[in-house]
Amino acid sequence: MSAQQPTSSAHIDAYSGGSVVARAGQYIRVIDLEGVQIGDLFAVVTDNHDEFLSPSVTRLHNRTLFPRVGQSFFSNDDRPILTFVRDDSPGIHDMMFGSCNANWFAQRGMENHPNCRDNYFIAAGAAGINHVTQPDPVNIFQNTPPAPDGTFFIGVTMSNPGDSVTLRADIDCIVVLTACSSERVLGGQSTPMRLEVYDNDPNN
Amino acid sequence: MSAQQPTSSAHIDAYSGGSVVARAGQYIRVIDLEGVQIGDLFAVVTDNHDEFLSPSVTRLHNRTLFPRVGQSFFSNDDRPILTFVRDDSPGIHDMMFGSCNANWFAQRGMENHPNCRDNYFIAAGAAGINHVTQPDPVNIFQNTPPAPDGTFFIGVTMSNPGDSVTLRADIDCIVVLTACSSERVLGGQSTPMRLEVYDNDPNN
Repeated sequence: MSAQQPTSSAHIDAYSGGSVVARAGQYIRVIDLEGVQIGDLFAVVTDNHDEFLSPSVTRLHNRTLFPRVGQSFFSNDDRPILTFVRDDSPGIHDMMFGSCNANWFAQRGMENHPNCRDNYFIAAGAAGINHVTQPDPVNIFQNTPPAPDGTFFIGVTMSNPGDSVTLRADIDCIVVLTACSSERVLGGQSTPMRLEVYDNDPNN
Repeated sequence: MSAQQPTSSAHIDAYSGGSVVARAGQYIRVIDLEGVQIGDLFAVVTDNHDEFLSPSVTRLHNRTLFPRVGQSFFSNDDRPILTFVRDDSPGIHDMMFGSCNANWFAQRGMENHPNCRDNYFIAAGAAGINHVTQPDPVNIFQNTPPAPDGTFFIGVTMSNPGDSVTLRADIDCIVVLTACSSERVLGGQSTPMRLEVYDNDPNN
């Protein structure tokens, strides 16, 4: 919790998405309200929607599977777009997996299942972003690290109620978050999340 | 080598890119002509350039860092687009890293360096694909596996002269290949590659 009040915020219902607008230098907090939840996070440059956070470009620049606190996420134009300021969670995140989506659920017998890809397009569209193809997500709190044999460990998310990560915007950007819909890795159900924007580091 | 003749082919000069067109059911061979070379590979659906091979969606479906022989690469619409038929190489490839690009080289003191991102846009454009943003690559023969500590091993590529991978097209697609320009992981210089298309499996 912070003594500061956020300058703006978005409550993200279970199985849905939302967004906030951040100016360069502002801070964004991503909060798992009830625990054991994943948030698929996207950042799109406010004045050029063709520039957005790219996990593959971030790996190229950082040479790590995921940024550590103090490192940045990079855009597809090689600019730092968000910097990872603080991690108040077990510290396990992912940016290897594409978003869960309607096809993926249907292939597993779940027709018309809510999913992060559809929720991205709905939330991004509501924010004025009309992407034809979805950027890759940063899967905050997702517990699916690679194993030495080249497979992935598919674990239930370990975040606790109120866990958060704090990011700093390095470019004016729109931050979209979808509360993941994939029950198996969420301990049974999707639960709500929250995005908050602060003018100053809310941890100070 | 194969007794069959390819139905089409493209010679890819060092530090440049090229493409071939494949119909569903045809086979594509990617050849490292001189050894110690990486090819950034892209596949774009012929009749819908907004559908293309997606490494992150491929990981979502396969739950492996890279497809094994017999597995498919998936498109951003969750369809198998290329199937990995045979590997005549040391078997080390990557689809975690974004393409080398002009910004990345400039940040390392190499202005105006040839690079796979620019070469993608040139080769894709020549094939009639006018992408605004670059799809993520499959980095054939790239030797940069993740380490248990969350960093990447950055190794010189281990492919030998004539090494190849064979893929089958599962959808009519345009396959773009760029001969990587990043000398450090190529043993000092970029060298040429070759794409070949066959009506039948050239390994039979």
